[in-house]
Amino acid sequence: MTIAASAHNPAFLHHLANSRSARLLHAELGRRWPESPDQLLSILRYALLPAGKLVRPIMTLYAAEAVGGDPRHVLPAALGMEYLHVATLVHDDIIDGDDLRRGRAAVPAAFGIPHAIVAGDHLIFSAFRSIVECGGAVPAAQVVAAAAELARAGEDLCRGQALESRLVGDPGSGVAPYLDMIRLKTGALFRAVCYIGAVLGGADDGLARRLARYGEHVGMAFQIRDDLLAYAVPVELTGKPATSDLTNGRPTLPVLLAHASGTPAQRQLLVDALNHGSGRDGDLARVRDLLVETSALDEAHARAIEQAALARAELSTLVPSESVEVLAGIARWVSGEVPEAEVS
Amino acid sequence: MTIAASAHNPAFLHHLANSRSARLLHAELGRRWPESPDQLLSILRYALLPAGKLVRPIMTLYAAEAVGGDPRHVLPAALGMEYLHVATLVHDDIIDGDDLRRGRAAVPAAFGIPHAIVAGDHLIFSAFRSIVECGGAVPAAQVVAAAAELARAGEDLCRGQALESRLVGDPGSGVAPYLDMIRLKTGALFRAVCYIGAVLGGADDGLARRLARYGEHVGMAFQIRDDLLAYAVPVELTGKPATSDLTNGRPTLPVLLAHASGTPAQRQLLVDALNHGSGRDGDLARVRDLLVETSALDEAHARAIEQAALARAELSTLVPSESVEVLAGIARWVSGEVPEAEVS
Repeated sequence: MTIAASAHNPAFLHHLANSRSARLLHAELGRRWPESPDQLLSILRYALLPAGKLVRPIMTLYAAEAVGGDPRHVLPAALGMEYLHVATLVHDDIIDGDDLRRGRAAVPAAFGIPHAIVAGDHLIFSAFRSIVECGGAVPAAQVVAAAAELARAGEDLCRGQALESRLVGDPGSGVAPYLDMIRLKTGALFRAVCYIGAVLGGADDGLARRLARYGEHVGMAFQIRDDLLAYAVPVELTGKPATSDLTNGRPTLPVLLAHASGTPAQRQLLVDALNHGSGRDGDLARVRDLLVETSALDEAHARAIEQAALARAELSTLVPSESVEVLAGIARWVSGEVPEAEVS
Repeated sequence: MTIAASAHNPAFLHHLANSRSARLLHAELGRRWPESPDQLLSILRYALLPAGKLVRPIMTLYAAEAVGGDPRHVLPAALGMEYLHVATLVHDDIIDGDDLRRGRAAVPAAFGIPHAIVAGDHLIFSAFRSIVECGGAVPAAQVVAAAAELARAGEDLCRGQALESRLVGDPGSGVAPYLDMIRLKTGALFRAVCYIGAVLGGADDGLARRLARYGEHVGMAFQIRDDLLAYAVPVELTGKPATSDLTNGRPTLPVLLAHASGTPAQRQLLVDALNHGSGRDGDLARVRDLLVETSALDEAHARAIEQAALARAELSTLVPSESVEVLAGIARWVSGEVPEAEVS
């Protein structure tokens, strides 16, 4: 069975993880970041490997292929998308004080904050170096367009991060600011990932923008789903503490929805849970119960599926191909439309 | 009197600060970073303004002009050099725990570490966006070369930062590792600043590389001089605490030279001073006295002047012009060859 053919069933993730693109990326990451006695290189290797599901670089390769490009020509840029993603994780773990990432010590916990700052910065620069590395196979104007998109997306990520900090502690801050925030914080990188794959693959700006919009919706679906999984599945599956959002006072979509439809007592429970810095015993269980009772988890999931549908709609005018089918499958998968609990 | 004509006297700095290039940069910075109710934009404005002497962006403009380019076409990239420089200052102030910068609260002290991380990241992305912004007036291939150089320089800065942390506490670590470290930590950005000005100004790679080497030597001269000023002049002139290097255990050139030529007792004094984390009363005065006694400050200054001479030698094959004279003057000034205590 091809990956595309599995897009409607739980085997999709397995197929994607074992696709030629994924294997190529894993091999290239290992080759480019070998064991090293150098301390900084060791930290960078620790941050990058073992890699997660590599969803973003995989999307870059399929976006290139979907517009008729050669994925091998965009391989460095695809790796760069992972570098930028991991840079944000490393810096976020400092900001959030999270000690656990992908089931082991996060970079700041393992190496200290100064090294984590420098490692994150290095990965940002490496992302840009990876884009320009494609200049051997791709015309310079397209490399400039890709670098411009990455720079814009990076600024958006920072704006999203700043916006998120403004919503802290307030479960009544509303759904619209949350959606704006995740569009910047998460949507922007997924947008760049697809735009860059497309434009380096030879797409004109209009076609690349269509793939960018697809990516932005996928990113929003991904973030909504990731946020609600913190309340829906145990830590063993997500590899990070489910209480991080609560202890950091972050109101995610299910909390915002439960607050909007809740009784005064339910609202007070949410306000209290978001404003106990160190995380009170039982807060997570109480919030979980409330999110189930008020159907807020279900409603949030419906919003993720809605974003995935918007993403797929952007693909509808592309020439049908295996790659386009895989991109559609990714949208279904990140939104949890395909029955699969695990999200990277 | 022209700026170039003042390159051998103390008025040079005054002329440079009031040059058309400097005024253009100051005006453009103010225009691009206005007062804003947005928190992140306010922090970015605080980090950037009031600006320092803008030595790096000024060098970008003069490098462009020195190769026959139009400085107006490289203005965005020149601003980008300041963004990257300020990004490193903001992140360094977190790493070093420095609360004072340019005579007022440093960004982490004023806004907290999380906001300082995000602001620094944003400035890195803005630097790249500024490079691609030159794409309107400059061919794409040259923009790609400039972005590639900035990415490489950024990786070098991070490697320099990591190398610096390995030398901490050891005044016997030797002069060669220190020179390697400052070549990466400081030389790399000055190198990029000049390469980018030259390549966006229309220079071929060979000519741009010559200006890059000039810039690298200027950067090393600048760093040696900056490090020794911490022991030579009071805090009111540098705008940052002279004890930062000592409390952070960093052996700079005068300390390394004094250790190399010192008696066992003098060596012990240096080891002790670098290994009292919080800075003992009297340490700075004792180290200062030792650096004067052993002529280490004078010898370090001679090394700065030597780097400046290497920088000027790279300019000798360029077509003589006012711009080339100003670049030569900058090399003299940062090394302290021109009698002027103040360095930005």
